[in-house]
Amino acid sequence: MLKRIISGVVGIPLLFFIISRGDFILYFSVMAVAIVGLYEFYNAMKVKGLNPMTTLGYFISTGILMVFIYSRNDLLLFFLFITIITISGILLMSFKYTVIDGSITIYGVLYVTVFLGHIILTDKLENSAIIWLIFIIAWATDTFAYFGGFFWGKRKLCPEISPKKTIEGAIAGVLGSMFACGFFGYLFLSEYSITIIILGMVGSVISQAGDLTASQIKRYAGVKDYGNLIPGHGGILDRFDSILFTAPTVFYFYTLFIK
Amino acid sequence: MLKRIISGVVGIPLLFFIISRGDFILYFSVMAVAIVGLYEFYNAMKVKGLNPMTTLGYFISTGILMVFIYSRNDLLLFFLFITIITISGILLMSFKYTVIDGSITIYGVLYVTVFLGHIILTDKLENSAIIWLIFIIAWATDTFAYFGGFFWGKRKLCPEISPKKTIEGAIAGVLGSMFACGFFGYLFLSEYSITIIILGMVGSVISQAGDLTASQIKRYAGVKDYGNLIPGHGGILDRFDSILFTAPTVFYFYTLFIK
Repeated sequence: MLKRIISGVVGIPLLFFIISRGDFILYFSVMAVAIVGLYEFYNAMKVKGLNPMTTLGYFISTGILMVFIYSRNDLLLFFLFITIITISGILLMSFKYTVIDGSITIYGVLYVTVFLGHIILTDKLENSAIIWLIFIIAWATDTFAYFGGFFWGKRKLCPEISPKKTIEGAIAGVLGSMFACGFFGYLFLSEYSITIIILGMVGSVISQAGDLTASQIKRYAGVKDYGNLIPGHGGILDRFDSILFTAPTVFYFYTLFIK
Repeated sequence: MLKRIISGVVGIPLLFFIISRGDFILYFSVMAVAIVGLYEFYNAMKVKGLNPMTTLGYFISTGILMVFIYSRNDLLLFFLFITIITISGILLMSFKYTVIDGSITIYGVLYVTVFLGHIILTDKLENSAIIWLIFIIAWATDTFAYFGGFFWGKRKLCPEISPKKTIEGAIAGVLGSMFACGFFGYLFLSEYSITIIILGMVGSVISQAGDLTASQIKRYAGVKDYGNLIPGHGGILDRFDSILFTAPTVFYFYTLFIK
């Protein structure tokens, strides 16, 4: 717990600085987190005995994030083509890989890089306050679920995947996220307050699904944490597992219902 | 061989009719081939012991082809997000699937549906003659490689994947494709003759890679053919394995070097 507090004391102001500055400092940070996260995901798959095409994964991830940074989403399809063709080429050249290894390589790129890349897409939206909601939803959910579970937790949510989580904690997470989003919306996006509260609800459910998805992938691979980069938190994916899911949720919710 | 000739007598005029008409008759045909092809791909993976999320695969494939048909490529990213989120949801709800099953589901959609969908994108290009090159390259390569190998074939190309293919056949395939493309270019696209001959060369190599990729996936899965839909040819993927690869190749070659 102490390690987590120290990590927070360093991490939160750092994140605040990065998001406030936005633009290339933010883009570079997203790229760094995506590459390290992908490295951790591939490592977990290696523990399971798979053989992801890591170099290809990092190249394609960098390419896709560049596409996002330079707002050239029309090139995305071309990148997918190049990826599949390259995987086929690798499969034909080297028999140490299988089509399963190729598919897990792409899955990692979509799940980690493309999802996280939505932070960049959100930063490019006209309304510069929206990006904060990605982090507010994930952290309000996390914090309220933790304390909600601590004080009222009785019924297990899904003991097979995450033994400590409770239904009461999950509900507290959703309510906490709605409250935090409502408060933020009232301050900075007052014309959309109600919509932002609904986003707080939907986003919190998806945020918790993101957390559980990461736990399940780790259980499947047979690893406890994705790594040990952040003291008290494990790997970068252990810290960003919810953010992966809240980033596209906030982006699409905004483009569909607010913009 | 007789079965193949009969299939050809029915198949070639049918294809000629479908491409000449273009538009929705073509789009519907692409959709049918993609769904049946995906079904065959998933079946091969089931033989290997995997458990692809077939219903999700068909839904997403239909969605992506609709995106192509209505020229709404900007929605592609949103579809990828929905796919990954749905896979996560299925993984959390049902323990009979693993992240590997989810990733092979997506791989099938990209490899079969998205690749084949480039026929639709090519049909929408301004120059309506280009679409024929997708089929000319694949079939000229196939035919010339067959006879080239038959008459001059000595050295094996890659006996582990496809025991009958020879280097001489592969070269004859490339030359035949260049010749066929050159002839077609001379008749219908005379201002780009040289470029089309180069496309014939590049496309033929990729076409043969497509053929070998399909063989390798089948070998990996432990099936001889993808199915028995077309007499003498096996499944629809056995017949369209090269087309899968020539469709995006022709499309991107045109948009990059001709348009």
